[in-house]
Amino acid sequence: MAGPSRTTQRIAVRRYRDGGSERARDAVSIEEPLEIRVRPHAGEGGSVAVTMRTPGEDFALVAGFLLTEGILSDRADLAELTYCRSGTGPQLYNVVEARLHAGVAFDLDRLSRNVFTSSSCGVCGKGSLEALDVSGCRSLPSEGTIRLPSDVLAELPDALRRRQSDFDRTGGLHAAGLADADGHLHVVHEDVGRHNAVDKAIGEAFLAGRLPLHDRALVVSGRTSFEILQKAVAAGVPAVVAVGAPTSLAVDLAERFEVTLAGFTRGGGFNLYAGRERVVEATASAASSHPVASES
Amino acid sequence: MAGPSRTTQRIAVRRYRDGGSERARDAVSIEEPLEIRVRPHAGEGGSVAVTMRTPGEDFALVAGFLLTEGILSDRADLAELTYCRSGTGPQLYNVVEARLHAGVAFDLDRLSRNVFTSSSCGVCGKGSLEALDVSGCRSLPSEGTIRLPSDVLAELPDALRRRQSDFDRTGGLHAAGLADADGHLHVVHEDVGRHNAVDKAIGEAFLAGRLPLHDRALVVSGRTSFEILQKAVAAGVPAVVAVGAPTSLAVDLAERFEVTLAGFTRGGGFNLYAGRERVVEATASAASSHPVASES
Repeated sequence: MAGPSRTTQRIAVRRYRDGGSERARDAVSIEEPLEIRVRPHAGEGGSVAVTMRTPGEDFALVAGFLLTEGILSDRADLAELTYCRSGTGPQLYNVVEARLHAGVAFDLDRLSRNVFTSSSCGVCGKGSLEALDVSGCRSLPSEGTIRLPSDVLAELPDALRRRQSDFDRTGGLHAAGLADADGHLHVVHEDVGRHNAVDKAIGEAFLAGRLPLHDRALVVSGRTSFEILQKAVAAGVPAVVAVGAPTSLAVDLAERFEVTLAGFTRGGGFNLYAGRERVVEATASAASSHPVASES
Repeated sequence: MAGPSRTTQRIAVRRYRDGGSERARDAVSIEEPLEIRVRPHAGEGGSVAVTMRTPGEDFALVAGFLLTEGILSDRADLAELTYCRSGTGPQLYNVVEARLHAGVAFDLDRLSRNVFTSSSCGVCGKGSLEALDVSGCRSLPSEGTIRLPSDVLAELPDALRRRQSDFDRTGGLHAAGLADADGHLHVVHEDVGRHNAVDKAIGEAFLAGRLPLHDRALVVSGRTSFEILQKAVAAGVPAVVAVGAPTSLAVDLAERFEVTLAGFTRGGGFNLYAGRERVVEATASAASSHPVASES
């Protein structure tokens, strides 16, 4: 088992509570893409999957994936697992190739017709920040997008939970909703899959011709990962508020595309990981919305 | 938002506690495959994804998926969303086709080369129980596979939690482990993705030539869904023990492939959803392992 130094990373955050905020430190789980490639003994191989994973035990992950997806069934069919050396930089340890022994059948074309895709997928066909950059995904503008008073933001997950059915409040289903700057939830959907709940919420707005969702915050039960931030960026949602923790890649994506990202939003407070310009501290908000008596 | 009748289902379970068990009722979240198909105005379309989802709001889900995966960017490109009528039975509402307007580019070949797959995928290339049946996946035999005393089973999630790092005990990472009938965890892995943690645990055993894992139970943090059960079946693991709830499809899969499935395993008790023949009630176990004094 990989130790904490491999699976988590400490980062600077801003902690909001009681109408104010202060600098703090937080630990986030590391999430990085791993591309899984298969190469037969003779002939061309190719990519069969990219999964967003916590680095460490990558060969076990690839072996388990190939087995449980039905691509391999016998240990003896597998000649070697190696990190691909063709890449440079951070990709170096994010591509693993499985080489098969002679005589082991592998048909990439057949496979790519039949493999399932889930929506934990790249917006733009690649699970990397670089690919998002080059595929027309845009940073969220600071001006003209939602601004959230910190006390309103802090209550959003509770509001989401109240909109869930009784059973689902116990944690049986994930939920996602779209909130406005007053904290009103306009759309709430539930699903066994977190990404599906987000797709349902965004999809309803998309069908209604409401995109880009510059005046909405995406509120999610549970944690935020790459895929949730990616979906927010694709729909033009400038703020993501979660009851749980973000992964390292969710934070990276939020910083890169200038999305406001809050986590651990509970008990009246939250940690802010990116996009501070859209959060109005409650004390400042109160001061500006209640001018001194002589002006009224 | 779909009501509880759409998203959850009540089922019969067996409740174990204090060395005994009794019949009980439980509600599980409904999980079913949805195939997403895209058809251009002229020419052939095809399947772009199958996602395991909670039925309801399927058109919103499909629209959101197509947008956030970069397949569509403009509402005006979408002519119609329909359930495919070619199927019969339960599949009728599990295939949605998006028809595009004339002039909207769509290249299925390009797409299927580039879409990400995640391991929330079919063992055998299809996200349905039927496809698992026909693809060589075997039911787990009752004889010669692990038998778990109920008090040992009840402690497995706590043992898993103790093997996680400090940070991860707070819920930042998912964990999966392989336990023997004495409750000893031989393999524990962590990951931001639940399916990855399972693949790492199974993959390590696969690489060591230890499959099928007839003498092991798979212990997972969080909930169990179709994909977790599917991976257990593929690796020959006859028992799955989770701290959280199963989905409806996890229960179906456990029944179909005769896998022992426990959920809500906490506080010394658990709910058993399938595979009772492998669970030895602690009282019965104590009686048989401590024969009467006259026999010793």
